[in-house]
Amino acid sequence: MTGTGPGPAAFDMVIRNGRIATASDTFHADIGIRGGKIVALAQRLGPGLDEIDAAGRWVLPGGIDAHCHLDQPTGDASVMADDFLTGTRSAACGGTTTVIPFAAQQKGGTLEDAVADYHRRASGKACIDYAFHLIVADATPHTVQKELPDLIRRGYTSFKIYMTYESLKLDDRQILDVLALARSEGAMTMVHAENSDCIAWLTDYLLERGMKAPRYHGTSRPAVAEREATHRAISLAEFLDTPVLIVHVSGAEAADQIRQAQTRGLRVYAETCPQYLFLTAADLDRHGFEGAKCICSPPPRDAGSQQAIWDGLDNGTFQVFSSDHAPFRYEDAQGKKVAGEEADFSRIPNGIPGLETRLPLLFSEGVLKGRIDIHKFVALTSTGPARIYGLYPRKGSISVGADADIVIWDTGLRRTIHNDALHHNVDYTPYEGRRVTAWPAVTLLRGKRVFDNGAFLGQAGDGQFLPCEKPALAQPRPGRAGRSPWLE
Amino acid sequence: MTGTGPGPAAFDMVIRNGRIATASDTFHADIGIRGGKIVALAQRLGPGLDEIDAAGRWVLPGGIDAHCHLDQPTGDASVMADDFLTGTRSAACGGTTTVIPFAAQQKGGTLEDAVADYHRRASGKACIDYAFHLIVADATPHTVQKELPDLIRRGYTSFKIYMTYESLKLDDRQILDVLALARSEGAMTMVHAENSDCIAWLTDYLLERGMKAPRYHGTSRPAVAEREATHRAISLAEFLDTPVLIVHVSGAEAADQIRQAQTRGLRVYAETCPQYLFLTAADLDRHGFEGAKCICSPPPRDAGSQQAIWDGLDNGTFQVFSSDHAPFRYEDAQGKKVAGEEADFSRIPNGIPGLETRLPLLFSEGVLKGRIDIHKFVALTSTGPARIYGLYPRKGSISVGADADIVIWDTGLRRTIHNDALHHNVDYTPYEGRRVTAWPAVTLLRGKRVFDNGAFLGQAGDGQFLPCEKPALAQPRPGRAGRSPWLE
Amino acid sequence: MTGTGPGPAAFDMVIRNGRIATASDTFHADIGIRGGKIVALAQRLGPGLDEIDAAGRWVLPGGIDAHCHLDQPTGDASVMADDFLTGTRSAACGGTTTVIPFAAQQKGGTLEDAVADYHRRASGKACIDYAFHLIVADATPHTVQKELPDLIRRGYTSFKIYMTYESLKLDDRQILDVLALARSEGAMTMVHAENSDCIAWLTDYLLERGMKAPRYHGTSRPAVAEREATHRAISLAEFLDTPVLIVHVSGAEAADQIRQAQTRGLRVYAETCPQYLFLTAADLDRHGFEGAKCICSPPPRDAGSQQAIWDGLDNGTFQVFSSDHAPFRYEDAQGKKVAGEEADFSRIPNGIPGLETRLPLLFSEGVLKGRIDIHKFVALTSTGPARIYGLYPRKGSISVGADADIVIWDTGLRRTIHNDALHHNVDYTPYEGRRVTAWPAVTLLRGKRVFDNGAFLGQAGDGQFLPCEKPALAQPRPGRAGRSPWLE
Amino acid sequence: MTGTGPGPAAFDMVIRNGRIATASDTFHADIGIRGGKIVALAQRLGPGLDEIDAAGRWVLPGGIDAHCHLDQPTGDASVMADDFLTGTRSAACGGTTTVIPFAAQQKGGTLEDAVADYHRRASGKACIDYAFHLIVADATPHTVQKELPDLIRRGYTSFKIYMTYESLKLDDRQILDVLALARSEGAMTMVHAENSDCIAWLTDYLLERGMKAPRYHGTSRPAVAEREATHRAISLAEFLDTPVLIVHVSGAEAADQIRQAQTRGLRVYAETCPQYLFLTAADLDRHGFEGAKCICSPPPRDAGSQQAIWDGLDNGTFQVFSSDHAPFRYEDAQGKKVAGEEADFSRIPNGIPGLETRLPLLFSEGVLKGRIDIHKFVALTSTGPARIYGLYPRKGSISVGADADIVIWDTGLRRTIHNDALHHNVDYTPYEGRRVTAWPAVTLLRGKRVFDNGAFLGQAGDGQFLPCEKPALAQPRPGRAGRSPWLE
Repeated sequence: MTGTGPGPAAFDMVIRNGRIATASDTFHADIGIRGGKIVALAQRLGPGLDEIDAAGRWVLPGGIDAHCHLDQPTGDASVMADDFLTGTRSAACGGTTTVIPFAAQQKGGTLEDAVADYHRRASGKACIDYAFHLIVADATPHTVQKELPDLIRRGYTSFKIYMTYESLKLDDRQILDVLALARSEGAMTMVHAENSDCIAWLTDYLLERGMKAPRYHGTSRPAVAEREATHRAISLAEFLDTPVLIVHVSGAEAADQIRQAQTRGLRVYAETCPQYLFLTAADLDRHGFEGAKCICSPPPRDAGSQQAIWDGLDNGTFQVFSSDHAPFRYEDAQGKKVAGEEADFSRIPNGIPGLETRLPLLFSEGVLKGRIDIHKFVALTSTGPARIYGLYPRKGSISVGADADIVIWDTGLRRTIHNDALHHNVDYTPYEGRRVTAWPAVTLLRGKRVFDNGAFLGQAGDGQFLPCEKPALAQPRPGRAGRSPWLE
Repeated sequence: MTGTGPGPAAFDMVIRNGRIATASDTFHADIGIRGGKIVALAQRLGPGLDEIDAAGRWVLPGGIDAHCHLDQPTGDASVMADDFLTGTRSAACGGTTTVIPFAAQQKGGTLEDAVADYHRRASGKACIDYAFHLIVADATPHTVQKELPDLIRRGYTSFKIYMTYESLKLDDRQILDVLALARSEGAMTMVHAENSDCIAWLTDYLLERGMKAPRYHGTSRPAVAEREATHRAISLAEFLDTPVLIVHVSGAEAADQIRQAQTRGLRVYAETCPQYLFLTAADLDRHGFEGAKCICSPPPRDAGSQQAIWDGLDNGTFQVFSSDHAPFRYEDAQGKKVAGEEADFSRIPNGIPGLETRLPLLFSEGVLKGRIDIHKFVALTSTGPARIYGLYPRKGSISVGADADIVIWDTGLRRTIHNDALHHNVDYTPYEGRRVTAWPAVTLLRGKRVFDNGAFLGQAGDGQFLPCEKPALAQPRPGRAGRSPWLE
Repeated sequence: MTGTGPGPAAFDMVIRNGRIATASDTFHADIGIRGGKIVALAQRLGPGLDEIDAAGRWVLPGGIDAHCHLDQPTGDASVMADDFLTGTRSAACGGTTTVIPFAAQQKGGTLEDAVADYHRRASGKACIDYAFHLIVADATPHTVQKELPDLIRRGYTSFKIYMTYESLKLDDRQILDVLALARSEGAMTMVHAENSDCIAWLTDYLLERGMKAPRYHGTSRPAVAEREATHRAISLAEFLDTPVLIVHVSGAEAADQIRQAQTRGLRVYAETCPQYLFLTAADLDRHGFEGAKCICSPPPRDAGSQQAIWDGLDNGTFQVFSSDHAPFRYEDAQGKKVAGEEADFSRIPNGIPGLETRLPLLFSEGVLKGRIDIHKFVALTSTGPARIYGLYPRKGSISVGADADIVIWDTGLRRTIHNDALHHNVDYTPYEGRRVTAWPAVTLLRGKRVFDNGAFLGQAGDGQFLPCEKPALAQPRPGRAGRSPWLE
Repeated sequence: MTGTGPGPAAFDMVIRNGRIATASDTFHADIGIRGGKIVALAQRLGPGLDEIDAAGRWVLPGGIDAHCHLDQPTGDASVMADDFLTGTRSAACGGTTTVIPFAAQQKGGTLEDAVADYHRRASGKACIDYAFHLIVADATPHTVQKELPDLIRRGYTSFKIYMTYESLKLDDRQILDVLALARSEGAMTMVHAENSDCIAWLTDYLLERGMKAPRYHGTSRPAVAEREATHRAISLAEFLDTPVLIVHVSGAEAADQIRQAQTRGLRVYAETCPQYLFLTAADLDRHGFEGAKCICSPPPRDAGSQQAIWDGLDNGTFQVFSSDHAPFRYEDAQGKKVAGEEADFSRIPNGIPGLETRLPLLFSEGVLKGRIDIHKFVALTSTGPARIYGLYPRKGSISVGADADIVIWDTGLRRTIHNDALHHNVDYTPYEGRRVTAWPAVTLLRGKRVFDNGAFLGQAGDGQFLPCEKPALAQPRPGRAGRSPWLE
């Protein structure tokens, strides 16, 4: 027994006898929590004010969903169904304790405005902790040279740029400006990599020929357009000898580009999402207009690409597994089921919900079927995102000094996913009817139960804003020559 | 309550305030040790009978050297210079707390005899813990079908096979028999991958033409011979859908084969060694006969291959970093400096010493120069080998329940490697004169100081034999179809 | 002098107005033949003793089938159904004017004996011209150092070695000896690349479990066994910096190895066959025992591999397209339909007939469907083999000075392949019922019609033996450093 | 009728006894020429009005230089030094009988105007035959949808597009429009593949830091910028399932992208130039400002890239070998030696002369040193460009019916290249002082000597304009599914 109690309880909470896993280790220990932090891991700890017996259960760090959209203005008639309350509630019920949504600059607007606006949206509503990625949509000199350095210092150390979508995309020169800034400041650049012109060209081509059904969304964004942009993003980052992270990789061709870059020693990171493991293009062709429920970008591909993504999760191509939760209701004027003559695929809001189902799906199909081990699960869903986005070591692990964000898992169960049982504000899930064999029993946020025995116990406003450090992975490497000796 | 002291000391030893790293995590904590085990990690622990202040220092799990040769009969006139005493002493002084040398079957002999003989050699001598790999040199049905399953159950769960050396090599059919047994038993097969016939052909060719100097050792074992055997070993393992680990990978071509296999989802693992980072073929051409000091197989390559190995350490191609310590004295009739007319490269005993310098070299050039991070260092030198060879979680990490094998590192120092200061029984080191910037301050074996402040404090017989579990990485994966559906 | 006016006919034969194709060119011209040679190509030639109007038709060089087995002793109870008479008759009727079968050394025998024996079998029987490849099955010093150089000088400049089949295979050391000889003499080495031990291991495995049906022949020789041996053969040739040609490549994995080697500048050549374009593993599972009709080694693969072979034909991976004609009757005690308890796949004679159908199949599916152009057809079926095996410029093209081996093609027809209409002595064709759209109208051998309007017009003994030159492709390249600077 | 006896000469010219090579064949024959055409090839032809004894010499088809700039407006202060007279004169003296320069659209202008203007420049001046590529610099709907189809029908079947240079470059959408038109019309698209934004970004970066010397031209256009654009161009073509040809490939990285595309079955073609075999980046750092003489884009790379280009010539990656002759004088206000404060690398006119030295350099270093064979030489310099740009079979071979564009080569000589001896109007050659061992003895244009025994014998206006056919390589392939099934 660590400590020599009885005396007064040394801990606010003790989790006993769990089978704890980190991104590299497994051990049996009691976890002692005080002040929202993990303060002790020991074979036998003294009493806590509260205790949970985790015997026979996996005890893992709380999930970090590093790619999700909450209450984000869309710039058109569509409206996101989840705000910070419903979104983070849903996340907590699925084992996630930190989200990193996007504060998106408007063309013509500033990042400061976006950040301020986004704080207003999150504040008092978030039930779990949150950081913000920035979206740089207007890469003016002011934004890149003034705002970014200032915001990086204030804890916004990652930014996403788009190579597609008219309202968001940067051209290569702007991407270089952003990457150069990221390099000099040691920040992390995320890229949505699809070739805009290919998609626009093909969308026009399809619509002119009357090919409007949801399934043509998939046709309009072929794998080659993603592969092209992925290679280009990697090349631009290689040109400037700076890291880059490719988000929501959908399949074999883009993954292969990333792998090749890693093979030749580049710091290229990658993220994928449940939709690329559990959906295919066929899901966009569900009866009626229901394919709209699975429309997201890049679109789900085929069985070969699903296998490629699994291989990439196992062999280290991917470091981050996120939901890309982008919540639009189906039966809703502001949602997916666009109507009338205008009902072509290009008008359907892009994105699918997934905050709550992300971890149970991966645990069931990945860990419990032996495709990835428990450490890879932790790495992909918690430690990896924490490291890459500068939240580590506060978040991302079960270790002394970390926030007590902990999930105790039930495994071996047989549950069928039904949207009725989910906690988001979307009226469907693309995974309706799918079986899972794992689900959180308890989710702790900084030592406090926010989900237990099927019930959400959190509260709006419980979530704290997390300023991010500059990620170690984005700092210079003195022992390794880059390919750009001309760079200062 | 973790420690409410004063009272009696709760721990045999407490390491305070260290900066602890595991293969995935970094945290500041006190480490509480009792009965040779880590029993608590906490922000502040109560008193220990002994205490070490590790403030400002890295505290890492003790190194596992998973590839070394100690007191191994060579079958010819040469004699290994290190037995279990001098070898493990040297290891401890370099931060290694576990070694896994080889119990080598003789052609015509049994594995049982080899194991018994090897226990005799180790027992009472080893200063640190040890497990044994088997070397299967005579793959008879009795050995493969009877001895191996029995020995696996008794804790010898990894075996090495050779594709070169007349006295050791197996043909492809025998390799398949061994791999099939490994598959059905869930054991790990290690392969020395060089094409025997290429080397024999070329050795004859060179010697016939009077090319006898040490540097021709390198010529005689070209990279293509290693690449060929590596691809073949991978193919045979792929054929049987079972894991394989390629030992002592020397350069770019073999590493590329391994990487390709991992890319397509195979469980191919790999090891490399300091000589492939810090030596090149030029070292075999040192003045006089001194090149003999750097003769090992496969031989060191060139600067391009060194970079490829660094890249492979960083990008996950390699899981294990070992010394391949094979100790022969230089000035010794039973050693390297063969004399007279017979002094051709083929008669020089193969292998170089490296147990003690392995970790300081990698820490200095890898971690401190930013080529790999501290977690990769731990993974490659401790956690990886522990996992792959079934010693985890007893060995390989700083976590509750693990053996208290711990190294506290001094970094930022400037030390020049001199053989005089090393603790092996070899009369030279290939790294004579090289600068390092990190060295162990203290090495603990199961909580006991075996090296402290430059002095070896261990004792012959302190080391325990470690039976190995079947490694999790070698067990079936239900969620992934192999390419051999005909296999039962 | 070409053309001496109205007087006596200047040519023995004139082919008028054809659309002539070579491996690189297309042109319309009259072809003047005298003394069995092409002596003139011109827009308008004077009269010939014989004339053919080829207007509107492709006129191509006669096919060279560089891989076929005729009247070859098998070493067991099976007997080849075609001798030099029936085999070459069949070839002529399919547009082939030269065959290169194999003079196969017996283990314990000499190459001289094999060559003498094979001349006896061919002499007086062959209806078209022929050269011999050697098969080196017993690579003794006498055979390699004495016989080969002598035979090379006498016109046997290519030899095949086997990496599989107990009675034929060489080990790596023997392969190196043969390759080294080929290098020093400038000869061409052909390799049957399948890993013998994998196949033997798996055959035993399958038979022990009662898996005996013909389709298990395919199972027993998986693609990975071919890929392994292909990479090994390439590596051995790379080691010695000498060319190598991989025969009968069956699919994507082996083709990829070859392509990679070519990409890095090696002189690696490759051959494929109709069975890898037009059959798959499913054909080995035809009803009853009929799958035996399609048993050959390596076995046909799948649709993906068929596409890979087509791509390889188009992009230059392959230089030679042969039949690998190995004729065994189906309903015959010495043939395919082995009976009784012993009727397991391993006892079925290996090989399928294909001399007559090779060119019509490739012309129909390749040229006429746009998968390859007419030049590639000529290159693969005539010019390539002529060059690689030292028959060029006597054979392999329609050019001044070459033998007048010419095929005038009918295209646009619709013919169904039936064995009844073929001219070999085998009682089936694997392509029974398949449609083709091209077939030779006329085949000329050295200016003489051997096939015309559906009728065989040749005669036993018309074929001449062709001594081969050392192929230019196998001679040293001064401007390119090999990777083996130690080689003399 | 060829050959009418002793009477009047049957031929305008007979070339006797030459060793003729085509892209696939070698043969000894007399060549009979009448009316500027090759009308007969025979062992012995009757008399010609003129005769040349070519005994012991290679007789090859005249070179086609498919990438050269003559009298092309530059849009700035620089002026090209060669017009159609001096340029084609120089070409003829180096064994080239056809050039294909560029009719370049101006932004805001039409292709029709460019073509008309360019005809004016060529007419009455060209000494050898010529066709025009178009340059599409302003891809308006009018240009793409109206002008291109019309011009294609009139014999302008290839067009070049730029991914770099502000005044020329198209964005991806415009590239797609051009490719789609090329696809539907069966025309050939050539791409200058360098990432414009990378180059612009880096040029600004360098100039801001005072890095202005000629060598920084090389720095400013790194290999990664070329690789990126190459992959993008290939991807866009793959997206539309249409061929593309990458011009002037400079090195290993771009070549690798092309090779990969060919490996997976795409119709991707490629061109390279002498400067990538015989110059490196070091040549841009010649003393003083002399590096300017070697400035071209992409810039020469390093020895590794030179080897990669040689490998690509040999293994089929490249189909076209051109000069990219872009003639600017060095000591000239309108030329290379820009002066004063403005003398930064970005203001130096891009391009180097090379029409006359192209073939002798490749023959000497390629054929005579064994890096490529004579057939590859013919293919790369004559047959390949003729086929790819629709000039075949009129141009590109020595075959009956072709234009009598013929070069008789002197080989085995030792000549040092001096600009004084060249026939262009440029005041330097980058190859000054280099040794060659081959040079044309005689160049015939349509049967007429235009170069003989060191003297230019041609005449302004002798050259004819050549309308181009749609290349066969750009037509649909019914037997092969593209990856864009949605395409009509």
